[in-house]
Parts: sequence; structure tokens; C-alpha cells
Amino acid sequence: MAAPVPNSQQEMRRRNLTRVLHAVAEGGPASRASVAARIGLTRAAVSTLVDELLRAELLVELGPGRPGGVGRPGSALALTGQGPCGIGAEIGVDRLTVCAVDLRGEVRARASAACANRGGDPAAVAARLGRLVARVAAEAAEAGLRPAGLAVAVPGLVARGTATVVRAPNLGWRGVDLAPLLPAGLPLTVDNEANFGALAELWLGASDGPRDFVHVSAEIGIGGAVVLDGELLRGARGFAGELGHVPVRPEGRRCACGGRGCLEQYAGEEAVLRAAGLPYGEDTGARITRLADRAAAGDTATLRALRDAGTALGVALAGAVNLLDPRAVVLGGALARLAPWLLPSLERELTARTAAPDAIPELTVSAAGEEGPLLGAAHSVVRAVLDDPLAHGPGRGPEGVRRTAARV
Amino acid sequence: MAAPVPNSQQEMRRRNLTRVLHAVAEGGPASRASVAARIGLTRAAVSTLVDELLRAELLVELGPGRPGGVGRPGSALALTGQGPCGIGAEIGVDRLTVCAVDLRGEVRARASAACANRGGDPAAVAARLGRLVARVAAEAAEAGLRPAGLAVAVPGLVARGTATVVRAPNLGWRGVDLAPLLPAGLPLTVDNEANFGALAELWLGASDGPRDFVHVSAEIGIGGAVVLDGELLRGARGFAGELGHVPVRPEGRRCACGGRGCLEQYAGEEAVLRAAGLPYGEDTGARITRLADRAAAGDTATLRALRDAGTALGVALAGAVNLLDPRAVVLGGALARLAPWLLPSLERELTARTAAPDAIPELTVSAAGEEGPLLGAAHSVVRAVLDDPLAHGPGRGPEGVRRTAARV
Repeated sequence: MAAPVPNSQQEMRRRNLTRVLHAVAEGGPASRASVAARIGLTRAAVSTLVDELLRAELLVELGPGRPGGVGRPGSALALTGQGPCGIGAEIGVDRLTVCAVDLRGEVRARASAACANRGGDPAAVAARLGRLVARVAAEAAEAGLRPAGLAVAVPGLVARGTATVVRAPNLGWRGVDLAPLLPAGLPLTVDNEANFGALAELWLGASDGPRDFVHVSAEIGIGGAVVLDGELLRGARGFAGELGHVPVRPEGRRCACGGRGCLEQYAGEEAVLRAAGLPYGEDTGARITRLADRAAAGDTATLRALRDAGTALGVALAGAVNLLDPRAVVLGGALARLAPWLLPSLERELTARTAAPDAIPELTVSAAGEEGPLLGAAHSVVRAVLDDPLAHGPGRGPEGVRRTAARV
Repeated sequence: MAAPVPNSQQEMRRRNLTRVLHAVAEGGPASRASVAARIGLTRAAVSTLVDELLRAELLVELGPGRPGGVGRPGSALALTGQGPCGIGAEIGVDRLTVCAVDLRGEVRARASAACANRGGDPAAVAARLGRLVARVAAEAAEAGLRPAGLAVAVPGLVARGTATVVRAPNLGWRGVDLAPLLPAGLPLTVDNEANFGALAELWLGASDGPRDFVHVSAEIGIGGAVVLDGELLRGARGFAGELGHVPVRPEGRRCACGGRGCLEQYAGEEAVLRAAGLPYGEDTGARITRLADRAAAGDTATLRALRDAGTALGVALAGAVNLLDPRAVVLGGALARLAPWLLPSLERELTARTAAPDAIPELTVSAAGEEGPLLGAAHSVVRAVLDDPLAHGPGRGPEGVRRTAARV
């Protein structure tokens, strides 16, 4: 069937305002004339739209001599560094992190706390996270920013369109609805960390980067996400991208998911540490650093463990590549730091097992790395503002954050 | 970015003509008023569009008492059983088949020939196919139909947007461009048979059937295709859906693709026949019938071979399900006929290995079965007509078929 046609003037206006904002967000500060050229509208139409966005305090005019201005001084439009911002949060297995990102994409406030969330009571974890959110929101407010929403990355499956963590084996959570546990007053989004990591790659990576890729990352489990034609594949129930449970040794080790021989059992952090003969310490970052240090020092057991993990990743990714024919495979999260030792065996398997000749996807390493899920979460809120600017003019944003800060 | 907006009156008219045709195609014969209700346009607007489609001889008015008429006699509109038709063709490993399908979706002419295409010279195979196409086109012409295009299903990988078979291991073809070898004068589409099979399932299955599914079929190889939100996933190069080369025993049997332990080596027809202790005979249909007969008679070796094939299918599909979270898995082609003996072990693996709880997709058997690729091919041409009706009025269709018939 034909694509839907915008059904009102209002909707058309909203779309055009969004196009102006995205043109500035993606192409950088620009004059009205160059925005018009970028999006193919007349200069007059763009001027009207720009006036509205200036009034809504989403765009600003860079004054003469102002750093960052391009072209004739005073004529360049830029996204505001004040006004709406996105709050991103990540519930890790042993760390909570929160940040605020402004419309320009800059991180303006940040807080994190080490804490053992494995087996933690969801309400207690959410309360701690809420306090960090309040701290970051207060810091953002001092800088003239107002939070437009909160997006939370979790290491588990989230039912599509809800805030319910269906299953997060490494937290020990099942069927946890985070909505009533997190600060009220802010629009809330909860999603799988690998999904946010892949979105960060899509949004923050090179502008000519691939728009069809499989993103694979690791913290304790293996996270995967599939981006097709610039859109995250969510799946019928929101559970797409579970690369960690693709069978790589069908008769192999039992997995917490109920299956056998899942990728996670061979390339997950716990499996790699065990194979390298290393203890399972306190903090993910420290564990990955230890693995990287040992590998760099040429420790045989560590090198073998990483090579075998690369082989397992290659087998699972070969299946994904044969099924999806993506443009690229991106290693993110902890895998980005371990890439030098994973890639040779991974690439060998992928090359040998890709059925179509000359269809080996590009193998790349995420620039966002371990920050991907957090940044992807915060940016998802920023993009929601850019996509619906009429809802976010001055006085329109949620004002619940100070209330929230008082509540927790 | 926002969806594109139709940029001209002409484009808007084309879209609305298409909406009228699809409303009649999908909802059956209907009055102008009910078409208007189905698509949400005014009765006056629909009347103008309908007049144009009647003049273009794509719609007809069913006369009073005419069978198939509904509502008030004389007022029901239906798709024509004359005018443009789609020619579908299938190059099988041991058979060529061609059919003509009218706008109503009815098969109006059909021809097939047994021939050993394995290792066959592409030019000779294409010439035989061309003669069948000419025969079917001539028969269609006698019934008042004019071919609007030719779509050819092949058991191999086709480079996206071309007529080039990159690799068809079971034909022994590599880099064969079919365009210069097939009848000129008709718009030509060449695609993988599994893709056309999945499209047939999407287009000809129940109207409330799933729009997100993995389709798996078998002739000699294993064919797979992925449909997401009602669209076939093609992949960056056109090679998506290669389920047959998903590793199920990573250290297992060598495969023609260069990999090891691919699904095809455990659930492909050749593997199943060997495991069942049956010879590899002349014709696919006869071989599948023999397997089904033996299984129905309780032959132990055949039952075990099919059970093991179901297990291998379950392992590969579990990977696909964890990655894509589809609404359904559909068994097509020869697998549809063997489903009673494949499903128990297949379902067991899928259930045990799907990571998300309650996310086991529905397991269904294709209604089109072995006819899927052929029907999907013919229907793809019909849908191209419905999607661009202005190009297919009387005298607008390609007239090359009689020329073609004379040429071959």
C-alpha cells in the first residue's frame, strides 16, 4: 500500500520543523539559506520555520565572533546548548551511570556509582538510580537545561513499548516493571542496553557509516542488536538481537536461558575469564582491563581464551550474516577493547562460513565502546525532542524533575 | 527524518488509483461506496478514480446476475480477468515451470517440462524456459491476457536489483546474467526461489496471517527468507535469508559454500535421503513422495532421518528466532509435505533454545507449499501492475511477447 500522507497542516508544519532541526543537528551550524538548500524548501519557508524554532528556544543565532559560527557572522543557526536535554541511565551489573546530553549532543552532567546489582532488589536499585538522576538533573538545571525525558538501558529483555524487564539473568530479575520504581514526572523509556549501544553507533558514528549492521557487545552477557536501513529491529515482542543465545555448540554447555551451547557460554565475560584462568572480580571495567593487560603481555592462556571467544563469535555472526546480509558487523562494549585479540579468529570463521561470495561484511569496532548504551539512551531523548519540537518549547517541557529530586 | 511526501498531483493520483485496486484485490468485489469506506476517501473521489480504472480496463463492473457479484447487481467492481497478467517461471534443479496469473490472482495458463538442469548450460536452460514462456504467453493471449512482465525464481543467490545469478551451487552456475538469455520485450525480474516462496506466503496466505516471519523451504538445498513488517528482507547485497548455511555443527561436514556443518548438510534433501538409506533419484517430487510414503509406513531409518533433520532445522531456526523475534516460522516447499515428521523435533529444539520466555513463534506450514516460488514470481508481476496502474492501461503493456514467441 502507498505510504501515509500527512493529514493536516499542523502535521506538515511539525515535519518541516523537524527537518530544519535535523539539518542543523546533522550538518552543523548553518545559515537559513544553507538549511534551505540542505532540505530542499524555499528560503522563505525556512525563515518562517526558523523564526518559530528561535521563539521556542530550540535554535539560537550565533553572534558575530562567537566561536563555532560559520559563514557570515550573526547569520549561523545552531542548536541551543540550553533548554531541553536528554537524561540517559545505565543499570550495569556492578555500576549505575547517569548523564545529561543537550540538543547539540554534548554531555553536560554525569554521575555514577559502583554497586553490586546482581541479585539486587529492583526497588532498591531503582531508588539509587533515581538519586543519581536527581543529582544529574539538578546539575543540568544549573546549566540552564531542563530534562525532556529519561531513558534507561538495562542488561536484559524489555517487552516492546513497556518499561517491563521481562528477564535480566545477570541481575536475577524477571518481570520487573521499572515505571513505578523510577522518578515520576519525566517521560520514561526502558530498553535493552545492546539496543541503545547500536543506536549510539548509528547516531554518533560516521555520517557515512553503515545503516545495515549487526552490533555485538559484551558486559557479562553478550548483547546483540540488528539495525536495518537505519532502523533498530525490535522484533514482534521486542526481543530481537539475542545473539548471545544463538547456538554455537548445540550439544555444549547448559545456559541460563534453558538452551545449550549458546554463544554467551563461550564468548561471555565469565566464560572468557574462566578459560583464561582469571578470577571473577568485582568490577567489569577492571576485569576487562585485566584481560587486555594480560593479552598485551602475551599471556598464553588469555590469548587462547580470547582466540576461542573470537571463534565462537565468528560462528554465531556467520549465522547472522547469512541470514541478514548486513553491510557491517560492529564490535561494541567490552568487545571493542578486546578487539585486537578477538578479530583474527572471528574474521577467519566469518570468511569461511559466509555463503555468498564477496558478501563478507565490514568488521568494525565501535567508537562509543563501553559508553554506547548510556549515550544511546540519552540521545534517544534528544532525538525525540528533535522529532517533535512543538511539544518542547519553553514552558512545555516536563517540570517534574525538581519535584522528583525532592521526592527521592 | 520524516517520510517523503508525494511531490505532485500525478503521484498522488497514482497512489490513489493503487489504493482503489488494492482495496478490491484484498477485499474482493465491492461497490464504489464500500471501496470509499475501505480506503477512507470520499465517494466522489473514488468514483473519479474508478472511472479511470474502468477506462484503463483494469477494473470491470460485474453485470446483474453475474456470478461473483455482491450487493446490488451491476454496482460491484472487480478486477479484470483480461488485460495485464503476470508470467511466473521457476528454474528447478530437475524441472522448468511457467504460469500466467491474471489480476484476480487466478492461474490461467501453465506449462512445465522435466529436464536435468544440474550442470546445464545456462543458455540452453534459458532457451528451453523461453519456449515455455512463449507457450504460456500465447495461451494467455488467447484468453484475452497480455503479459506485463516475467519473473523467474532460481535456486541460488541473485545480486540485488539485477538478473545475475551470483551462485547456484545445485545448478553449478556462477555469475550468470539471465537478462540476455531470456525473451526480450518483457520486463524481467530474477530472484531467489525462497524469496518468491515467502512472498507467496505473505500475499496468498490468510489476510490476518503474520507479517513478520522466517520462511524455510527445501528442494535440494535449504532456502530461507525473512519477512519483516510485511516486507521481504533483501540484505545489503541481496543475499539475506541464507538459512541453509547457518552453522548447526560448527566442526561438522564440509559444505559446498566453503563452510562446515551448515544446516543444508543435515536437513537438505540429499542429506536426508542419504540418512534414510534411499537413493538419490531423478525427480524432486518423486523423491519427496518416497520419503513421505516411507515415513507414513513407519520406516525406522526414514523416521530417524527426518527427526534428525527436524533437530538441525530447530537449531538453525532457534538462532534465527533469537536474532529476529519473528511472529511465526513457516515451513514451505518440500518441507511442507514432510512437516508431520519434522515438526516434533524441530519444535522441541526451538522451545528449548529460544532465550526470551513466551517468545516461541507460531510454527506453521505453507499453504502454497511447493508451488510457492512459482506463484510468488507470477504475483510479483501482478502486484507491480496494481502498484503502477497508469503504466498498464490498454495499449500500454509490453507487446513483445508475440515477437518473443516468434524469436525462440
